[in-house]
Amino acid sequence: MTYCCAIRLDAGLVLCTDSRTNAGTDQVNTYSKMHRFVWPGNRVLFLLSAGNLATTQGVIGRLNKDLERNAHINLLNLPTMTDVAQYVGMISADVQRNQMEREINNVNFEATFILGGQIDTEAPAIFLIYPQGNFIHESPEHPFLQIGEIKYGKPILDRVIRPDLSLEAAGRCALVSMSSTMRSNVTVGPPIELALYSAGSLQEGRILIFDEDNQFFRSVTECWSNGLLQALDNLPRFFWEKNTDNTVSQDSAPHF
Amino acid sequence: MTYCCAIRLDAGLVLCTDSRTNAGTDQVNTYSKMHRFVWPGNRVLFLLSAGNLATTQGVIGRLNKDLERNAHINLLNLPTMTDVAQYVGMISADVQRNQMEREINNVNFEATFILGGQIDTEAPAIFLIYPQGNFIHESPEHPFLQIGEIKYGKPILDRVIRPDLSLEAAGRCALVSMSSTMRSNVTVGPPIELALYSAGSLQEGRILIFDEDNQFFRSVTECWSNGLLQALDNLPRFFWEKNTDNTVSQDSAPHF
Repeated sequence: MTYCCAIRLDAGLVLCTDSRTNAGTDQVNTYSKMHRFVWPGNRVLFLLSAGNLATTQGVIGRLNKDLERNAHINLLNLPTMTDVAQYVGMISADVQRNQMEREINNVNFEATFILGGQIDTEAPAIFLIYPQGNFIHESPEHPFLQIGEIKYGKPILDRVIRPDLSLEAAGRCALVSMSSTMRSNVTVGPPIELALYSAGSLQEGRILIFDEDNQFFRSVTECWSNGLLQALDNLPRFFWEKNTDNTVSQDSAPHF
Repeated sequence: MTYCCAIRLDAGLVLCTDSRTNAGTDQVNTYSKMHRFVWPGNRVLFLLSAGNLATTQGVIGRLNKDLERNAHINLLNLPTMTDVAQYVGMISADVQRNQMEREINNVNFEATFILGGQIDTEAPAIFLIYPQGNFIHESPEHPFLQIGEIKYGKPILDRVIRPDLSLEAAGRCALVSMSSTMRSNVTVGPPIELALYSAGSLQEGRILIFDEDNQFFRSVTECWSNGLLQALDNLPRFFWEKNTDNTVSQDSAPHF
């Protein structure tokens, strides 16, 4: 399984991925799912991938090959982010079609992508590219996109993400969203990759990679758990409770 | 869709359900999914239901009919909670089988239940009864069970629920879990029913019903959102940030 999310802010973009792949419980591996294509001063593109690993590797391979042979259409010469989304979607659908022609065992060859980035003077943008090659973009009312195992990590994004957050605040929120997902689904796992792209910079930005033992990621997770307990302690009491320090951490059995 | 959860604590049981049913987006209705069978001093049984409404109504109907005609096996004469789980599972599988015999249109007749309660001097217990009629119980390491749309509301339970929580603290946590689910899935909706059963009481306990405009439920939700923002603000800063009051609520675009 996989979990990736991308957030579009006024300040830029936040992108976050796990790195665990599995083809059955006895074939668990680590692959980066954050692919970066950076031409400083011209364009910065991030491609986050979920789904069939052969398909996603095939798509990245095709994108790189088109760049190497300077194909008529490639990541470097398309004028807008929407054009890039269209191009990636077309290649993805094509790779899946090729694989399906050889299908013998009902294998699911589908892959889903998030494309994020900025080209020249265009505003930064994020797109969710479906297996069929079509795509959607984010909106001011819904400024984030997710692929893979999306549900566990969605409530915190729903409640917190607004376009005027700082990259760092949204980055922390993405880490929390990832941490919740990892806790609830063992097929989502470290290392966690986090990218903070500053709008207009046309530079790669901050790329952070957190492995299982990373002190910062552990302290974020621990601090978050404590914060939730605190938030729970601060909730309004039921009408029959005295408003005392009946905290979650100091509870004993109540008397009815 | 549906979301129900049940928590087993040293202090007793917490059970929470939504009340929205839908058969397509143009057939949204309200039905209670918390069914109570109470014989004070002898036994208290809660049955939470998810899945095909005709099936769950059929099962409840059969349970009541067996009680009315004082059947050889019924909810009142079975000696243990495990026996009750077995009986409910058998009836559920039977009702589904009957419906499937008349199937013409690939309808999904499945239903899933959570059974919670206490019989006489036995300890309180909760069971998840699958559509096939088999079942599992909770464990000290995993003291809660969920059915329906379970993922959005799971992270908070994963991080917070421990057997030594008070009924009230766990009740608040269940409301938060429900609130997060309602926010992320429109087919989960009010009224919310919450039951707090005190271990050993063999009385129905506290039954609370919150409709959409309920002041308490709204203040829990609002207070929770604020608490999350606060928890996020308290997370460790990235190494390049000054540890200032760069709060989520006061953010402006950061400078890289």
